[in-house]
Amino acid sequence: MKKHNFSAGPCILPQEVLKKASDAVVNFNGIDLSLIEISHRSKEFVEVMENARNLVKELLNVPEGYSVLFLQGGASLEFLMTPYNLLKVDGKAGYLDTGTWSSKAIKEAKLLGEVDVIASSKEDNFNHIPKNYTVPTDVDYIHFTSNNTIFGTQFKEFPKTDSLLVCDMSSDIFSRQIDVSKFDLIYAGAQKNMGPAGTTLVIVKDEILGKTGRTIPAMLDYKVHISKDSMFNTPPVFPVYVSMLTLEWLKNLGGIAAIEKINNEKAALLYAEIDRNPLFNGFAAKEDRSLMNVTFTLANEAHKETFDKLWNDAGISGIKGHRSIGGYRASIYNAMPIESIQVLINTMQQFEKQVS
Amino acid sequence: MKKHNFSAGPCILPQEVLKKASDAVVNFNGIDLSLIEISHRSKEFVEVMENARNLVKELLNVPEGYSVLFLQGGASLEFLMTPYNLLKVDGKAGYLDTGTWSSKAIKEAKLLGEVDVIASSKEDNFNHIPKNYTVPTDVDYIHFTSNNTIFGTQFKEFPKTDSLLVCDMSSDIFSRQIDVSKFDLIYAGAQKNMGPAGTTLVIVKDEILGKTGRTIPAMLDYKVHISKDSMFNTPPVFPVYVSMLTLEWLKNLGGIAAIEKINNEKAALLYAEIDRNPLFNGFAAKEDRSLMNVTFTLANEAHKETFDKLWNDAGISGIKGHRSIGGYRASIYNAMPIESIQVLINTMQQFEKQVS
Repeated sequence: MKKHNFSAGPCILPQEVLKKASDAVVNFNGIDLSLIEISHRSKEFVEVMENARNLVKELLNVPEGYSVLFLQGGASLEFLMTPYNLLKVDGKAGYLDTGTWSSKAIKEAKLLGEVDVIASSKEDNFNHIPKNYTVPTDVDYIHFTSNNTIFGTQFKEFPKTDSLLVCDMSSDIFSRQIDVSKFDLIYAGAQKNMGPAGTTLVIVKDEILGKTGRTIPAMLDYKVHISKDSMFNTPPVFPVYVSMLTLEWLKNLGGIAAIEKINNEKAALLYAEIDRNPLFNGFAAKEDRSLMNVTFTLANEAHKETFDKLWNDAGISGIKGHRSIGGYRASIYNAMPIESIQVLINTMQQFEKQVS
Repeated sequence: MKKHNFSAGPCILPQEVLKKASDAVVNFNGIDLSLIEISHRSKEFVEVMENARNLVKELLNVPEGYSVLFLQGGASLEFLMTPYNLLKVDGKAGYLDTGTWSSKAIKEAKLLGEVDVIASSKEDNFNHIPKNYTVPTDVDYIHFTSNNTIFGTQFKEFPKTDSLLVCDMSSDIFSRQIDVSKFDLIYAGAQKNMGPAGTTLVIVKDEILGKTGRTIPAMLDYKVHISKDSMFNTPPVFPVYVSMLTLEWLKNLGGIAAIEKINNEKAALLYAEIDRNPLFNGFAAKEDRSLMNVTFTLANEAHKETFDKLWNDAGISGIKGHRSIGGYRASIYNAMPIESIQVLINTMQQFEKQVS
């Protein structure tokens, strides 16, 4: 039976990517060896790493003067690497607190220095993106999370600052056009729009590094990884390769402009149904609704069993909401076909008929 | 053409593991979803993580009171996590310096405190394991590297100490029987005998943690990872799964006692040829020879082209030596079949006939 995979991450990847990745695990590019049993310094794998890096640069139109890295440890390790690399000794950083992941980033930064939480929507269970906050001018950098996977909110406009701008884009990178030149550091765990779990994309402006006065451990130092082309230590070969395949798929599809149009259409369809159908309530403030993670709850919890049986029977998986807000979360990343969204909408309409 | 893969790591994995891993990338266990597109918190993947952990415990006979973790960042991040978790504020650690990886571990530890380099074979280009050194009694822990991939040396007896004993076993774990109870912390990058690049195995005695007086960043804190069953953040799903498959393969083969016997036979065959054949010289001191990485050089560099053509024609790959010592390195990890070693030996003998 065909599955409709709304998982929040690790999440749906394009079918053709899965097929190519599967082939490479037994015989990579016809070399009679598996991708995962060759040296990361072989010309075959060095080429994969270079292709992946170049695809990132091309798709996001990364300007000169930025480095692209594939690291390990996910966004969680970046929460620590960010202050290690950018927070000056006796310096201060500004953070926007828009959900679980922002809060975790704040916690790690506080280990290394002073943190100014500029604005927070915590009191409203993070159901919106704070606005009209004052951006401090005495900080080394401003950090924010562009899309909040758990709560289903997304920045539509980015903070404006003369300080360095740092963004955790784990759950919406490659889903919409951005101007990289407005950012100094972007990082993203691969396991949403880029690939499988196990690698982290970092895009960093070279000239901002080496200015904190800190001694940085090698594995946490962006300069070390830049100097070794992401091969300071053995990179996560398979996750990097599958990321490369996914970026190739995106390029062939027409790049980010093309996918952004599709993503807008997909989200509009689903939010329209949530707003129309009296049995559902959207969770996030309308103006901050995420195009990646659509969060909604039942108007009447008594109907939970009925709805759960319906979507389960329809082959839908991964839409159980996060425990922080309950209800449902439909993650509709780049690889999610519009047909699967239509199946979900049909199920919501069938549910309406059944309980009315 | 059949390849004989002597790569030092990432390296050869069992064919049946590659086949199963390839299948799981398109359809995992018949659930009509790929392994790499399901949530790491799904019951399917939680089961993988538990199986992997239990196989480590079973194969290595890990005693009660130890935790088994699958992390990211390779041994290189462990070089930092070790002092973060075990080196007391104002404390001291003792390190044995037996090669490139030991030296890197020492460098990271020095960032956090005092390091006593107990013994080093650096002056002899690490061609042997130091002996007759004095183990200090005033250190928080002793750290050593059980097998030195680059130089082809291996500890046959482990240091004896009343301090904590820490070992980087990246390149020989699961290749020979060890008594885990003699160690307090063992870590190993997966990409030799355990699986593909992208995950790190950690075996740590619970009671040694939380005693340094340091504040430890979350991602570097073993206690955090233990409390979340290696799921503090999204784990590297595919590398953990393939590690589980490889450990299953090892168990079915008879476990570590069985593979140790085979490994001894394989190494004995190859070293016998190196010692017999006048065209080759072994690099490592005989008593310290690694059973995993067999390093040797040509007696006469003028014959290099001839030998390189011969092994290339025989389908041998990955035996070029590391730049630190030149020559050749045949890595003969668990998954390397004795037939491939025989092909290498035949090639060495053919070479002898050709140039004599």
